[in-house]
Amino acid sequence: MGPVGPFEPPYYAVVFSSLRTPGDNDYGATAERLEELVAAVPGFLGMDSARTPGGLGITVGYFKDEEAIAAWRGDPEHREARTRGRKEWYEKYVVHVARVERSYGHE
Amino acid sequence: MGPVGPFEPPYYAVVFSSLRTPGDNDYGATAERLEELVAAVPGFLGMDSARTPGGLGITVGYFKDEEAIAAWRGDPEHREARTRGRKEWYEKYVVHVARVERSYGHE
Repeated sequence: MGPVGPFEPPYYAVVFSSLRTPGDNDYGATAERLEELVAAVPGFLGMDSARTPGGLGITVGYFKDEEAIAAWRGDPEHREARTRGRKEWYEKYVVHVARVERSYGHE
Repeated sequence: MGPVGPFEPPYYAVVFSSLRTPGDNDYGATAERLEELVAAVPGFLGMDSARTPGGLGITVGYFKDEEAIAAWRGDPEHREARTRGRKEWYEKYVVHVARVERSYGHE
């Protein structure tokens, strides 16, 4: 269940923070399918996801470089899901694309 | 309840992903106190937080620059909390410090 990493910098983090609309509307099945698809993108490193019940969700995807992010953005099923997301699944979301300069972990 | 942003790039995101140990052990009160303190750091832009019950938590703090991150890391109560965190509150955590290059939102 994570957390994934730390990875060797530099790499990229795509932070997706959202509030959902009520109801599922195929969101769960689509999210599972997208997790399978992103795992096959060359340069994908891993992802972490958390959602407070009835509140904010945060998903962070880690990628080797901008090329890997672009490949994922260009995936046809991912594109279609983004369109549905804007119309059906999300009340609001914010995306931050960032270059990771350092990372560390503890356990 | 968020999500915060998007802000004007460049800025920094500090992603903190964690698994908690069982029990509270003052975690809740300390987390509230730290939220008050970080809000007063010059260059702090905002933060988002989510936790799946029994699972992963993700907190992302946004800062104007490295100086703001350093100021927050140097806060004495924050230092003390990090020490307790390693000993008492977290089974495991990973931190990624990243420079945000672009961001966008939808609502």
